[in-house]
Amino acid sequence: MTRFDIITCQPSLLDGPFSHSILKRAQDKGLVEVHLHDLRQYAINKHGQIDDYAFGGGAGMVLMVEPIAKCIRELQAQRSYDAVIYMTPDGQTLNQATSNRLSLLENIIILCGHYKGVDQRVRDMFVTHEISIGDYVLSGGELAAAVLADSIIRIIPGVLNDESSALSDSFQDNLLAPPVYSRPADFEGHAVPDILLSGNTPKVEEWRFEQAIQRTRERRPDLLPEE
Amino acid sequence: MTRFDIITCQPSLLDGPFSHSILKRAQDKGLVEVHLHDLRQYAINKHGQIDDYAFGGGAGMVLMVEPIAKCIRELQAQRSYDAVIYMTPDGQTLNQATSNRLSLLENIIILCGHYKGVDQRVRDMFVTHEISIGDYVLSGGELAAAVLADSIIRIIPGVLNDESSALSDSFQDNLLAPPVYSRPADFEGHAVPDILLSGNTPKVEEWRFEQAIQRTRERRPDLLPEE
Repeated sequence: MTRFDIITCQPSLLDGPFSHSILKRAQDKGLVEVHLHDLRQYAINKHGQIDDYAFGGGAGMVLMVEPIAKCIRELQAQRSYDAVIYMTPDGQTLNQATSNRLSLLENIIILCGHYKGVDQRVRDMFVTHEISIGDYVLSGGELAAAVLADSIIRIIPGVLNDESSALSDSFQDNLLAPPVYSRPADFEGHAVPDILLSGNTPKVEEWRFEQAIQRTRERRPDLLPEE
Repeated sequence: MTRFDIITCQPSLLDGPFSHSILKRAQDKGLVEVHLHDLRQYAINKHGQIDDYAFGGGAGMVLMVEPIAKCIRELQAQRSYDAVIYMTPDGQTLNQATSNRLSLLENIIILCGHYKGVDQRVRDMFVTHEISIGDYVLSGGELAAAVLADSIIRIIPGVLNDESSALSDSFQDNLLAPPVYSRPADFEGHAVPDILLSGNTPKVEEWRFEQAIQRTRERRPDLLPEE
C-alpha cells in the first residue's frame, strides 16, 4: 500500500483529480491512500496566516516555515516517510524512471508550493526530493502534485486492469507509442492502414515497432541510443 | 479574452482546478472563459460509446474518431479557433516560451486523450498542436490540459494581481528563481541570510541575481547560454 500525504493551502483544487477515475479506483481497491492536509490548519495565528512578505522585498508572498514544519512533524510522529517531496519548478525534472522508482515507496509526503514558493528553510530542513513536472510555471504546486501522484499511482501493480497496457506506453521502453486506430475502418475516406486489418499479429507488431521508432526519430531523437 | 474549450471524457476531473484559485478568479474577472465538453454527449450510439478496441489488437482502448470529430466541428461552426491542441506524451514538450506564445491566442480547443489515446485520424485531420507536459505517462490528458491552461492563464495580463511577480518566476529569464525567506528571521537556529535583512535593495537584488545564477548552474546548466 502506498500512502500519499499532500500538504497544500488549496485542498479543494485536488478534490477533483483524486475523487474520480483511476485515482479513485486505486483508493477503493485499497492499493493507495491519499490524505490532503490543509496548511491553514497549521497557521501561526488565529487569522489563519500561513504566508508573509519575502525578506528583502519584492513581489509575491512566501509560505512560512512554521506551519509547514508543524504539519510535517505531526505526520512524521505518526509514521516513517520514505520521501518528503517539494513540487517546485527548479527541482529535478520528472520523468518516467523517477515515477517508476517512487512507485516502490510506502509513505510519501508531497508539499505543494504556492505564490513565490516556500521559505528556503523548509527545503533545507525537511525536504528530501525536489521535483519539477516541466519547464513552466504554474499558479501553485497542486496540479504538479496531482500529476506526480497520477504518474506514480497508475503503475502500482493492480491499479490498471490490464498491466500490459502500461508497459506499452510511451517512455517505458524509451520509444514513443505508435499510432492507434479504431472503428470505423474508413472515416470520410481516411482509411486505417491495411496491415492493422490483416489479422497477422506478428506483422502488426513489426509495423508498430517500426512506427514507434520512426515517430521517436522524428519527434524525440534524444530518447534513442546514439546510432 | 481567451476562451478555452476542453474536450474530455472525464469532465469531473477538471471541476476542481477550474473552480478555485487563480483560474476561477481569471474567469470571474472576465479575462478567461473555460468550457468543458463531455465527449460522451457526442457518443456514436445510445450506450454512450466513445471508445473501442484498437485495430490490430493489443491492450488498451482507443478514443474513436467520430465523437471527437463531431464535437470539434460543432465548436468550429460557432467560432474560429486559433489552435486545436491534443495533449499527448509524444507531443512537443511544453515550456514557458510555448505558454507565453499561446497566451496571445483567443480561442483554443484542448483535447484530452485517455486510455491508449485518440484514433490517429483525429490527429491527422483536426489537431494543429500536439503538446506533452513532460516525459511521463498519466492516466488521462485531463491533468495535462489543466496544467497547460494554468500555465497560460496565469500570464494573461490582469490575471495575477501583481504582474511583476510572474516576471520574476523561474524560466521567464532562463534562470531559476533565487531562494526566498520570510518571518521569523530565526527559526530554531536557522537564520535568514543577513543581506536580506539589510534594507539595502540594490545589494539584495545583486544577491538574488547571483543566487539565481548559482542555482541554475548547479541544477540546470542546460538553461544557461554557453560560456
